[in-house]
Amino acid sequence: MSDPVILFAAKPERWVTYEAPLRKALINAGISDTGLTLTDEPKDVDYIVYAPNSEIQDFTPYTRLKAVLNLWAGVEAVVGNQTLTVPLARMVDSGLTDGMVEWCVGHVLRHHLGMDAHIRNQDGVWRNDVIPPLARDRSVVVFGLGVLGAAVAQALVGLGFDVHGWARSPKVLDGVICHAGSEGFQEVLGRADISILLLPDTPATTNLFDAVRLAQMPKGAVLINPGRGPLIDDDALLDALDGGHIGHATLDVFRVEPLPVDHPYWAHPNVTVTPHIASETRPDTATQVVAENIRRGEAGLPFLHLVDRSLGY
Amino acid sequence: MSDPVILFAAKPERWVTYEAPLRKALINAGISDTGLTLTDEPKDVDYIVYAPNSEIQDFTPYTRLKAVLNLWAGVEAVVGNQTLTVPLARMVDSGLTDGMVEWCVGHVLRHHLGMDAHIRNQDGVWRNDVIPPLARDRSVVVFGLGVLGAAVAQALVGLGFDVHGWARSPKVLDGVICHAGSEGFQEVLGRADISILLLPDTPATTNLFDAVRLAQMPKGAVLINPGRGPLIDDDALLDALDGGHIGHATLDVFRVEPLPVDHPYWAHPNVTVTPHIASETRPDTATQVVAENIRRGEAGLPFLHLVDRSLGY
Repeated sequence: MSDPVILFAAKPERWVTYEAPLRKALINAGISDTGLTLTDEPKDVDYIVYAPNSEIQDFTPYTRLKAVLNLWAGVEAVVGNQTLTVPLARMVDSGLTDGMVEWCVGHVLRHHLGMDAHIRNQDGVWRNDVIPPLARDRSVVVFGLGVLGAAVAQALVGLGFDVHGWARSPKVLDGVICHAGSEGFQEVLGRADISILLLPDTPATTNLFDAVRLAQMPKGAVLINPGRGPLIDDDALLDALDGGHIGHATLDVFRVEPLPVDHPYWAHPNVTVTPHIASETRPDTATQVVAENIRRGEAGLPFLHLVDRSLGY
Repeated sequence: MSDPVILFAAKPERWVTYEAPLRKALINAGISDTGLTLTDEPKDVDYIVYAPNSEIQDFTPYTRLKAVLNLWAGVEAVVGNQTLTVPLARMVDSGLTDGMVEWCVGHVLRHHLGMDAHIRNQDGVWRNDVIPPLARDRSVVVFGLGVLGAAVAQALVGLGFDVHGWARSPKVLDGVICHAGSEGFQEVLGRADISILLLPDTPATTNLFDAVRLAQMPKGAVLINPGRGPLIDDDALLDALDGGHIGHATLDVFRVEPLPVDHPYWAHPNVTVTPHIASETRPDTATQVVAENIRRGEAGLPFLHLVDRSLGY
């Protein structure tokens, strides 16, 4: 059997950080790295290591392709591509998961403790009158209980928060009060002192957090969105922030990125914009996942982390 | 046996929040609350529930006193009182411990993630070039491994940080690399990307973090002090911040509190002053500790959490 041809299809700056760990991961998985390339005849390519913003949008010429292995967790920009008929795998990277847990727990604690009041107001006034409740008296809801949401929810349980989770279908997670479906969604909104949005971007989740749902959250509720921009109806959120019903929103993802400089989120005193940094795929760990899937492909074993195209994630 | 006389000796505003939970805790411990009082003849008092800033500084008239039960963790303001000859107990309150863990983990994550850059600079610039390392590649040192330090260190282990601890005498803590004594102190300074100071205030710890020790920390090191103000040589810290060797200091405790409005800490761009809020004794849990010690005193059992006056804590 000849060495598989593995096309790395992402923006050039990714190659700089991925080449060395990917070669190492392939060799460690028993796969020759001689077929790893940035350009090749489409008809000779066995695997595409893929970033959805790559130049390749038409997969038709890739006639011997065995799989597309996504470098990122989100697949919304590729899942509807009709020219892609081979298996598509999401990235489930332990480094990305760990980074997401750290970012989410950090921002939950930031809002729980009311840190911004101190970080922003170093004006000599000793404001020691507001002592936050303990974590056990603070309800946090994690929307989306996939690999990322489940890990975040359990880290919050470890710190003593009253943690609720919501997913489309029923889940069981140690220490997390899990809710499911549309009835569970209504129920959990009322408990959402702090919400973390880690749902996939699908037609069913677009504008899920709209004016009606935001109004059902407790007064002063905090939204943290490291998931996907379209989960939130932006105009409704701005209205709810202006009216004071939503206390703060920390947003890492947006419909358009970079978020345009004149977007009202930048100027709103109760919004913190972060530039899609909540978590990144980490080359050391992600390349191991890619290599393992190529090893499986070569051995005729089922791929890991396959996308269910009917669900869109 | 008559009901014990229990004098509540703290500032009057404390009585408002402590009276109801203390009565409940006493009754739950099988102790009558009829002897609980704000004023009594000193010669009739059995126990003093004590805040070191109370008016009582001369214990000589309290001739039948069985114990002084401190409401706070810190005893430096009472431990040297020569008129106090009966047992003195520190407060070890699970609510205070939980609150301290939440505050410390929150501020470690804040610095780890570089949150301030985003919280302070909502200026429309998409700064996504700095991705922090994962927690496993960040060393945090907890100085002081008493009840509070140990709990903080273990919560940080749970989040994946590379956690080191230092204490005067050797300790063993699951997942924490423990160092002890003056040799261990030298060793641990070089690893202190982020330091948390939770040492008691004693003659041996005064100005422990001086110019020489601060210079031995890694460049850009962050100090978090929720412990006691005198642990730090303030002038040396300001110099190290000005020189850039210390990256940031988040300080919750000071030699003089409230921190005077003209203190340079308030104006320094790389200092965050918080007003002694890292953690508070929580009446619900603290009164249970007080009641348990009174129960023990009445039953002739040894008191919990006794202060070792030769060590000063």
